Amino acid sequence: MGARQLHFNLFLHDTGHHEASWRLPSSDPHANLSLEAHQHLARVAEDAKFDSLFLADSPAMFGEPGRRPAGRIEPTVLLAALAVSTQRIGLIATASTSYNEPFNLARRLASVDHLSGGRAGWNIVTTAGDAAARNFGLEGQPLHKTRYERADEFLDVATKLWDSWADDAVVADKEAGVHTLRDRVRPISHSGAYFSVEGPLNLARPPQGHPLLVQAGSSEDGKEFAARWAEAIFTAQPTLAESQAFYADIKRRVLAAGRNPDHVLVLPGIVPVLGETEAEARELEEELDRLIAPEYAIVQLAQLLRVDPDRLDLDAELPDDLPSEEAIEGAKSRRTLVVDWARRDRLTVRELIGKLGGGRGHRTFTGTPVQVADTIQHYFENGAADGFNIMPAVLPSGIEAFTSSVVPILQERGLFRTEYAGTTLRDHYGLPRPANRLDPAAEEAAS
Amino acid sequence: MGARQLHFNLFLHDTGHHEASWRLPSSDPHANLSLEAHQHLARVAEDAKFDSLFLADSPAMFGEPGRRPAGRIEPTVLLAALAVSTQRIGLIATASTSYNEPFNLARRLASVDHLSGGRAGWNIVTTAGDAAARNFGLEGQPLHKTRYERADEFLDVATKLWDSWADDAVVADKEAGVHTLRDRVRPISHSGAYFSVEGPLNLARPPQGHPLLVQAGSSEDGKEFAARWAEAIFTAQPTLAESQAFYADIKRRVLAAGRNPDHVLVLPGIVPVLGETEAEARELEEELDRLIAPEYAIVQLAQLLRVDPDRLDLDAELPDDLPSEEAIEGAKSRRTLVVDWARRDRLTVRELIGKLGGGRGHRTFTGTPVQVADTIQHYFENGAADGFNIMPAVLPSGIEAFTSSVVPILQERGLFRTEYAGTTLRDHYGLPRPANRLDPAAEEAAS
Repeated sequence: MGARQLHFNLFLHDTGHHEASWRLPSSDPHANLSLEAHQHLARVAEDAKFDSLFLADSPAMFGEPGRRPAGRIEPTVLLAALAVSTQRIGLIATASTSYNEPFNLARRLASVDHLSGGRAGWNIVTTAGDAAARNFGLEGQPLHKTRYERADEFLDVATKLWDSWADDAVVADKEAGVHTLRDRVRPISHSGAYFSVEGPLNLARPPQGHPLLVQAGSSEDGKEFAARWAEAIFTAQPTLAESQAFYADIKRRVLAAGRNPDHVLVLPGIVPVLGETEAEARELEEELDRLIAPEYAIVQLAQLLRVDPDRLDLDAELPDDLPSEEAIEGAKSRRTLVVDWARRDRLTVRELIGKLGGGRGHRTFTGTPVQVADTIQHYFENGAADGFNIMPAVLPSGIEAFTSSVVPILQERGLFRTEYAGTTLRDHYGLPRPANRLDPAAEEAAS
Repeated sequence: MGARQLHFNLFLHDTGHHEASWRLPSSDPHANLSLEAHQHLARVAEDAKFDSLFLADSPAMFGEPGRRPAGRIEPTVLLAALAVSTQRIGLIATASTSYNEPFNLARRLASVDHLSGGRAGWNIVTTAGDAAARNFGLEGQPLHKTRYERADEFLDVATKLWDSWADDAVVADKEAGVHTLRDRVRPISHSGAYFSVEGPLNLARPPQGHPLLVQAGSSEDGKEFAARWAEAIFTAQPTLAESQAFYADIKRRVLAAGRNPDHVLVLPGIVPVLGETEAEARELEEELDRLIAPEYAIVQLAQLLRVDPDRLDLDAELPDDLPSEEAIEGAKSRRTLVVDWARRDRLTVRELIGKLGGGRGHRTFTGTPVQVADTIQHYFENGAADGFNIMPAVLPSGIEAFTSSVVPILQERGLFRTEYAGTTLRDHYGLPRPANRLDPAAEEAAS
């Protein structure tokens, strides 16, 4: 390889990221619960040598069930199934630190890593919203700050659990009758503000040491958390300038946290809308926007902005007196991104809904394969991205088009692999296998 | 079919249920974490038309890691992988009601049911032992009674969550832009002593309505719980007479609970040890017992009996003054079974360890294929079993031997299927798809 290479993640989302994608004649509206549909997407991405695929998640209903397919298979379960259907591609599951126990989640992620031969990743979320909280005995969501404090301690516990078996613990000595060295499997005896966990984990250290740690929060708390823990970051940045600013800011924070900025990859989300001509691409985009049902969309927008839906007029701009980011305990950064975007481009509510229905605040790259490849290269070479989180508006056609038309151009330019060089997700992203936190000698040798 | 048919479940356990099985020259001592090893076992069982396979579990270390392979893949994750590798066989995961949240577990089990096309089952356990409790912020295990109260409420919540989507909720009407009927997806608004869960689940009703509910506790609380909830029961019964008594007792309790006794199957565990001659079978049994390392085994026995290991003498019988069942908050029924067995057969501690290392209290059927088939038929036709939980001492050889030699004899006798008649786990066990608890009309129509 030598030269710096792009990284690609496929963000799976049943019939596509555009909320009306399920209504297209070619779409399978039951794809959200279909093993075969997910297997097909995984194989398309793997054939194109993508680094990874990824599933979003929340332990609550995903918006309004009338509007689009609302049910989803739990990610660790679905990725275990996809581990069998693929050989090399990385498998990243979203899971909440607010609504899981560290022992159970650390074990499931380690299980996926073992089953897949070192291909598991964890997109760490703290889960905004009262709906999830009410499924776990709470009246409403914990404070933003509380959620991030818990997340920090959760990561401390999870990484110690993964390290509770030394890499050399299992000896499987049949002659002596010793399967595992007792003193190389150690309790973690964690006792903190949120968790008390004795350990050890009931599973050998994962092949990758720790599953790859991914994060996507863009609030202040989220970025500080990412600087401490994340190895790859998904982010929604609507313009090149904002991507560049985010990229520089994150790398600076990582350095300040005492970590190597090259070991934290920034992957903005992009919605590629491809056509043989630019006009053809724009036509698809407009067809999709026409299929959005505004009566559902307006309720969701109102929820994000914490206003009464009656205060939003489809053919007017957003009201001036919206609640501020500070007043919101939910998805802070998304709210701000949406409001800034609407105000900057002077969008009506109807226009804003169209933009959000497509990429939900992520950048749409519309054009011919060469145009899209050019934009990707421009971002990559100008301090805006280490790779991209690919979020096709329509699936599977959007990823089929991207991998068959854009990827070959980038491969030809020497910017993207034509074969996998390694076998693990860390290999693909070029990230080191972490030293064992409970093994001071090993940690020293690695540093 | 017509005539009453046997049911078979394969109890997976890496290199076999005998604790020394990993030490045999032919055993893969890393089978516990191997996808391929589990895939092979699943396919052997499916080729023989077994009803299901099953994984035990606890969110803590499985005994002494030195003694035998101690790490295990989390069951819902492993079964999702095996769903891809098989077509028809049922997939039963053990999961704890004491150390899970109902929303998360109900969702994962529903996910496996969707991915597998209706083949998921849940072996419900309350999880004895302080080790698990200390991984979840507790000092020690909750009281036996408390664990079962929580389990009851957990089942109430889980079944309501599965029923929170009506079977007809998803309409996928592209023309109208309505994916799901909003009033057919309903909150459950559960508020109880242990859980407050608003719902709905974020996943359509599972193909089977509810995953098959399986249970294995044999204490008073356990049997009453089974009578209320279980559809299949795994049990350890060392003699025919005890199996018959258990069978009659369970069916009586099910009737008393207002349920149909034919809808609750009793499946005793058996350890088939097969040889071309009876002598050959006994030789394998003795070879395995010789491989048990007593220094590990005695610690585990002492733990079960709640005595100091120093009080157990390998070459003497158990001490007279053991703590009573009432004084034990852990696995009550297993403790009593072991003590009764040792006293009845006047076993030394060394002999008892040998018996437990093999079948852990389950009945060992040793002999030629015809002898084992005869015993199975005798149990089945004399009120002792509706089928069996097959626990080979050595894997994969034990299940390969059983399916290639014993199963054909039972098929020839018309006692076991030669083809699957249906596609779901409920189809295989001949159990009805449950009515929707939140849909009074549907419930009425079904009863």
